[in-house]
Amino acid sequence: MPATATHRVPIELGERSYPIVIGTSLIDEPKTWSAVPASAQALIVTNTTVAPLYGQRLQRALAQRHRTVHVLALPDGEQYKDWQTLNLIFDALLKQACDRKTVLYALGGGVVGDMTGFAAASYMRGVPFVQVPTTLLAQVDSSVGGKTAINHPLGKNMIGAFYQPQLVVCDIETLCTLPQREFSAGLAEVIKYGPIADMEFLGWLEANIGGLLARDTSLIAHAVKRSCEIKAAVVGQDEREAGLRAILNFGHTFGHAIEAGLGYGQWLHGEAVGCGMVMAMHLSNGLGLVDRAFVERLTALLRAAGLPVAAPRLGPDRYLELMSVDKKAEAGELKFVVIDRPGSAALRGAPDALVREVIGRCSAEG
Amino acid sequence: MPATATHRVPIELGERSYPIVIGTSLIDEPKTWSAVPASAQALIVTNTTVAPLYGQRLQRALAQRHRTVHVLALPDGEQYKDWQTLNLIFDALLKQACDRKTVLYALGGGVVGDMTGFAAASYMRGVPFVQVPTTLLAQVDSSVGGKTAINHPLGKNMIGAFYQPQLVVCDIETLCTLPQREFSAGLAEVIKYGPIADMEFLGWLEANIGGLLARDTSLIAHAVKRSCEIKAAVVGQDEREAGLRAILNFGHTFGHAIEAGLGYGQWLHGEAVGCGMVMAMHLSNGLGLVDRAFVERLTALLRAAGLPVAAPRLGPDRYLELMSVDKKAEAGELKFVVIDRPGSAALRGAPDALVREVIGRCSAEG
Repeated sequence: MPATATHRVPIELGERSYPIVIGTSLIDEPKTWSAVPASAQALIVTNTTVAPLYGQRLQRALAQRHRTVHVLALPDGEQYKDWQTLNLIFDALLKQACDRKTVLYALGGGVVGDMTGFAAASYMRGVPFVQVPTTLLAQVDSSVGGKTAINHPLGKNMIGAFYQPQLVVCDIETLCTLPQREFSAGLAEVIKYGPIADMEFLGWLEANIGGLLARDTSLIAHAVKRSCEIKAAVVGQDEREAGLRAILNFGHTFGHAIEAGLGYGQWLHGEAVGCGMVMAMHLSNGLGLVDRAFVERLTALLRAAGLPVAAPRLGPDRYLELMSVDKKAEAGELKFVVIDRPGSAALRGAPDALVREVIGRCSAEG
Repeated sequence: MPATATHRVPIELGERSYPIVIGTSLIDEPKTWSAVPASAQALIVTNTTVAPLYGQRLQRALAQRHRTVHVLALPDGEQYKDWQTLNLIFDALLKQACDRKTVLYALGGGVVGDMTGFAAASYMRGVPFVQVPTTLLAQVDSSVGGKTAINHPLGKNMIGAFYQPQLVVCDIETLCTLPQREFSAGLAEVIKYGPIADMEFLGWLEANIGGLLARDTSLIAHAVKRSCEIKAAVVGQDEREAGLRAILNFGHTFGHAIEAGLGYGQWLHGEAVGCGMVMAMHLSNGLGLVDRAFVERLTALLRAAGLPVAAPRLGPDRYLELMSVDKKAEAGELKFVVIDRPGSAALRGAPDALVREVIGRCSAEG
């Protein structure tokens, strides 16, 4: 494997600042962890899929930072992102008499990161927390923003905290074992950063999509780095999600409708978001903001990334119903993240008739 | 009833600053709530004891701030300070489709405040929160500090957040319906502020203990105000409990041992803390820090407040065992908050032999 440079993205949030370290061969290297506060105890929270791959390796590498490193493997899957499973983390901490200096490591994808982060935010009102995301989606999406949460039977991510880690380590090698479908879904969130913020990055992705799909670690490292940088710039201006941060949800309003309409788990989150971006591009075009060629350009890149670009045929009524629930917080007209010019996004209302037309145009032929 | 002046104690925590308003006839007065952010929905969380007394009155007073004000009465008691009961708050919020602008009001004692605060910290990663403490203990202890939590079967207050309210309203009239025993227990935490921080306040309490026990609202309002001011000065220097804040736990190490040793609920928390202060005073005397007259002076005031000053006879071994568990976080020698001179407290180690002698001296005659 060719040597891959190690990148470092500083996340500037005053006293809650931390670095994201991106590269290869990071997990096994004790010096990767040298900035983590030393403590008597640490707990690696992972899941039953990731534990056999990296659990012991991380545990061994941490031996210099902590006298005792426990490993807890949670059941794998979004359906376990609930209080009962979260409580397994608290049980483990309390059974080991872990004090408030205990460091929690989240080793896994978004579900592990969200739950471990919320556990760290809440255990004894806050203990240090390190993220080791092992999926592309988690590396580009959960590394920045400090969002942690569990689901409630009546809503996803309804119970949680904004809580920043001490350090995020993205070891690109962990992505080499990802199933292709999951890797492509992660690419959707990478591609997102082009149209909303950086046309040069979009061009780079178009030129390198083949190498990315072939899991070239240097290329992936650059893509992760640039995604984190862009997200950091947005979140840095709006840590508590008051306004600007909404542009990160490009493709998510249509995407959530697809996920909910088909039943969660049918399409992966990234697949739904990718297709949602195609729909949001058509909406932007219908509002006269971008030309048709730009819509086609993004659609082609998503298709090249192995993502579905034709929406499921739920019918416009069902889409509108699902999107209204999603946006119930906002009174009146539905709002969408649109591209107002290539490389720039904004939150805009759109007439129902246009939204219906877009849904019709984007839906898969029967 | 004579008119009682309304006091205002500003809690300065940068962008998390808020006022404590202390006085009478506050709950029913719409202008008490005029600084709370207006929102479509609000939820008053209370318990089955307090709801019939003040639930509707607060609901009516809030009609100008919120279109819909829901009331949720939780079962009353420390044994319900758990996840299952906390989840009743999330259920209520989600069933009413409450958005992230929804304001939560905690109407009740410490348990209601702790749970509502943690629910507010966690619902959609944080919604605004107002405290309306209706016990003396909650008014002087929970009004300042931002500590919220629930219990875990393996430990009290193990899961929670530091989360500041928008406003705290201490309506002294709510204390007139408190049972005498509970009122006296609250006085223990008021008296605490004298020896640790303010000898003038201690003198004032000695002069006015009769009027306080007779529920003179003007006197109680002053006692609550001064307690909040002192706690605010300490917490302002140590919001996340890194060091100084420990002095607020004067009497708590012995007190927790009493509570745990007798079984929680046998003695009220304030009763255990009051007796714990007597023991900590004897310890301070044994360390040569204060004279015997000062020990007797504080003991006399606690007795006058209707509090037990003789410790339960658990035996020194059991006390030491219970206190070691309480302090398991700190390696080695037990540490205690002691009075190093009248009006000043410090955290100090103490030899086991002295601790045993103090326990023996303070224990009730069989």
